[in-house]
Amino acid sequence: MAVKTEIGYTTPDVISVRGKNLSTEIFGKFDFIDMIYWLNFSRLPEPREKAMANLILVAAADHGLTPSALSARLTFLGAPESVQGAVAAGLLGAGSRFLGTVQNVAEMYKKGAADLDDNASDESVMECAQKLVREYRANRTPISGLGHNIHVHGDPRVPVLRDISEQHGYFGKHWRLALAIPVVLEQERGKRLPLNGAGALGAIVADMGLDGIFGRGLMLIGRAAGLVAHVREELESPTGQELWDLVLEQDPRNVKATSGY
Amino acid sequence: MAVKTEIGYTTPDVISVRGKNLSTEIFGKFDFIDMIYWLNFSRLPEPREKAMANLILVAAADHGLTPSALSARLTFLGAPESVQGAVAAGLLGAGSRFLGTVQNVAEMYKKGAADLDDNASDESVMECAQKLVREYRANRTPISGLGHNIHVHGDPRVPVLRDISEQHGYFGKHWRLALAIPVVLEQERGKRLPLNGAGALGAIVADMGLDGIFGRGLMLIGRAAGLVAHVREELESPTGQELWDLVLEQDPRNVKATSGY
Amino acid sequence: MAVKTEIGYTTPDVISVRGKNLSTEIFGKFDFIDMIYWLNFSRLPEPREKAMANLILVAAADHGLTPSALSARLTFLGAPESVQGAVAAGLLGAGSRFLGTVQNVAEMYKKGAADLDDNASDESVMECAQKLVREYRANRTPISGLGHNIHVHGDPRVPVLRDISEQHGYFGKHWRLALAIPVVLEQERGKRLPLNGAGALGAIVADMGLDGIFGRGLMLIGRAAGLVAHVREELESPTGQELWDLVLEQDPRNVKATSGY
Amino acid sequence: MAVKTEIGYTTPDVISVRGKNLSTEIFGKFDFIDMIYWLNFSRLPEPREKAMANLILVAAADHGLTPSALSARLTFLGAPESVQGAVAAGLLGAGSRFLGTVQNVAEMYKKGAADLDDNASDESVMECAQKLVREYRANRTPISGLGHNIHVHGDPRVPVLRDISEQHGYFGKHWRLALAIPVVLEQERGKRLPLNGAGALGAIVADMGLDGIFGRGLMLIGRAAGLVAHVREELESPTGQELWDLVLEQDPRNVKATSGY
Repeated sequence: MAVKTEIGYTTPDVISVRGKNLSTEIFGKFDFIDMIYWLNFSRLPEPREKAMANLILVAAADHGLTPSALSARLTFLGAPESVQGAVAAGLLGAGSRFLGTVQNVAEMYKKGAADLDDNASDESVMECAQKLVREYRANRTPISGLGHNIHVHGDPRVPVLRDISEQHGYFGKHWRLALAIPVVLEQERGKRLPLNGAGALGAIVADMGLDGIFGRGLMLIGRAAGLVAHVREELESPTGQELWDLVLEQDPRNVKATSGY
Repeated sequence: MAVKTEIGYTTPDVISVRGKNLSTEIFGKFDFIDMIYWLNFSRLPEPREKAMANLILVAAADHGLTPSALSARLTFLGAPESVQGAVAAGLLGAGSRFLGTVQNVAEMYKKGAADLDDNASDESVMECAQKLVREYRANRTPISGLGHNIHVHGDPRVPVLRDISEQHGYFGKHWRLALAIPVVLEQERGKRLPLNGAGALGAIVADMGLDGIFGRGLMLIGRAAGLVAHVREELESPTGQELWDLVLEQDPRNVKATSGY
Repeated sequence: MAVKTEIGYTTPDVISVRGKNLSTEIFGKFDFIDMIYWLNFSRLPEPREKAMANLILVAAADHGLTPSALSARLTFLGAPESVQGAVAAGLLGAGSRFLGTVQNVAEMYKKGAADLDDNASDESVMECAQKLVREYRANRTPISGLGHNIHVHGDPRVPVLRDISEQHGYFGKHWRLALAIPVVLEQERGKRLPLNGAGALGAIVADMGLDGIFGRGLMLIGRAAGLVAHVREELESPTGQELWDLVLEQDPRNVKATSGY
Repeated sequence: MAVKTEIGYTTPDVISVRGKNLSTEIFGKFDFIDMIYWLNFSRLPEPREKAMANLILVAAADHGLTPSALSARLTFLGAPESVQGAVAAGLLGAGSRFLGTVQNVAEMYKKGAADLDDNASDESVMECAQKLVREYRANRTPISGLGHNIHVHGDPRVPVLRDISEQHGYFGKHWRLALAIPVVLEQERGKRLPLNGAGALGAIVADMGLDGIFGRGLMLIGRAAGLVAHVREELESPTGQELWDLVLEQDPRNVKATSGY
């Protein structure tokens, strides 16, 4: 195996990306979603794929002072000379519990629904969900994509993500399985844990036929946009020092001098 | 100063991003570029701004086995369970010499052209470039955005980036300064160092009136897309181990066993 | 649960680390290994623990142009202003396949040997190894800590790590299990995969009664020292650009101009 | 220039680190500080150098819920499968304002005291400090290593760090310059900004004749130890979620449901 890539090569006069000349065949002709698809799949997205990819990136971008935004801001506080370090610190939290969950969930739905027909009856989908719930219980593995510490009655993103998926023909067996899992959990164990945003995005990724790593990749690209906004706001209206003080105040053993002379 | 952000807030029923309801007013209505502008500037981009932002993201995405792609692949080799770690490792190289250069260059052009009129004569632009070149020389600071180790006769991206900038009305005083600098360097010191891709992108960022951190931010977002493609290819066609072997072979003191027994 | 730590607190006059005054009770009295134990376990190490902790850190530090060293150097090439970014990029590869393996292996041995008596007979240890090998085979999970692409006849570190473990009374049931696994693999499946350095270090961590995360933590601390040496050498004798060129040469589609005028 | 390192090489039977056999000449013979010096300088430290290196690492390790510890914990909250990611996120804040400051300060003292004799009179040291203060003021560059938001009357670490430096013969011209700078600032501008811990550590690094990158490197190695302790405590007594809630509470627009139904 050689050390080479099919993604691109370079000569003094040409930069080639998957067979197209970057300057003359891509610049001004591809938008960013086209480029993401071209780089990853050597093809352009259909219009409905482009709509969904935009939706995933938008959904990943941000919603306030999340742990990843806080990490980025705290990193920027110590190292304002390294914007890339702040963004990287924010992305490092996109693991199995936040953001990166989309990969885990997409892979779980794909494996769980592997034997399910695209036109499966509601009964078959429910059985599939029951099987998955029991397996996870037997292995004492928590099921990702469920519940939310703020949106306790249901994540407001989920119905809209579902509607848009239906509009574009991406409400398939993975979405149905995703929605059946909380029903099974409530019926069998009395637990109310509605599908959350990451669960819905994982269902979209699976119903679009995309792989889990690509799904997590879209989350990282989208979140990078939110982190850039946080770093820029941090520069204008710093919160890092105040956040540090706020944390220290939680433990009465920490004492801050009342005046600095 | 409180620990709060104007970027967004959350209630059980609503996720608000700069005053708009994420689910009902943003999902399906904003594309990713709209969201980047909304998050960062609380406004939507004009069509020509959207075209240029797409262009910058596309230009940042990738061109083959660059140092950032290699870092991401080598990181993935050791930690395949952490796609976010591989992408973060790749982004950490977006510093003052690669990719992140766009920030440095944009800030240099903005400062250098601060007193230059938008309709400045060619003579004024040349004088401005001469002043900048002399100042950097006096401080022994290298001028970023010039020369390329492969595209030695001129970076093939630059003329296309210029054309598209002109089409959209973003060929202004910063672009003119950027193009004047290599002319001055050749005239005064006999050095031929044409404007490179990062230099051209920095000129675009400056002529669009964007700040340097936002410029670097677009580079990070765009490159994340390329790194995702590299990680996915690395999973299918691994190069990391081969790259390691290739490096070890460069020093004859390293000896690899010829067979496993 | 409050946002607080038992690790330390601060007043205008005192920095307290686990109940000791950093300035008057720790500085000049604790060496670094004392501090690592104090921070993590609220106690000082015994002399034999200190010897072993030093050994693990030394073993983790470095051995040449490994993937983590290459990532750090390639990151430094793009962002020389951010030494922390280069070191972080190098550490991000300490995952389940390199370096971080010590955590996975230590946890595997601990779980595998949970029912094994400290004075178990050789037969019991072999049975335990057989059980582990069969379980991993049944789950199609590879066993970490075995084999090495360069040290194909056996990792030269392993016998020395074993001797030093024995000297200090840390050659226990986890070490014995670790050594039994390759024997079982050869007997049952004809595969020759000797214990490697990470496997031996995982056995040490387990026989010292330490948790897996602490084991991985020592690897990260130790490797940071090696990465600092690589970044400093990279500053004096850069290899990053040469490495990039070397990689591009592997694909004949990449063409470098023969001269730059 | 070839892609090679003088740090080490590997054959099937030998791992060589700067000319010594890792297994037979280093394991069990070098402690971690020996290894740090061997890797970086191809020599072993003198006893007094070892004492000081231990002191720097101990001082860097930790003091509670600092921004770097918070970043590591918030990252671990999202990605508990990646301990290396949490540690890397924590280290990324070791920039020009926290921790990494030691490099900046050491380089500032070295440059500032370059023309100062080792036995310079107090007057010469004061003049040197005045010159430095004026230069920084003229360039509108803040002087690092001064002041502390908690230790407003003086950093309690500084006198102890000074005493230990004197004991080991490392209280030289850089320490004297470091202590003269706040005196000048108070005399000339009425500002009271005592030398802080980072300033003192930078003085030590400079008086030991070490380079700034090595100084920052020691801070990274030492802090890694503290971050490991924080990640391990986070696993046992999680604070990340509580910290997130605490932040959201600061903005009354954020509303959390009072109960789960």
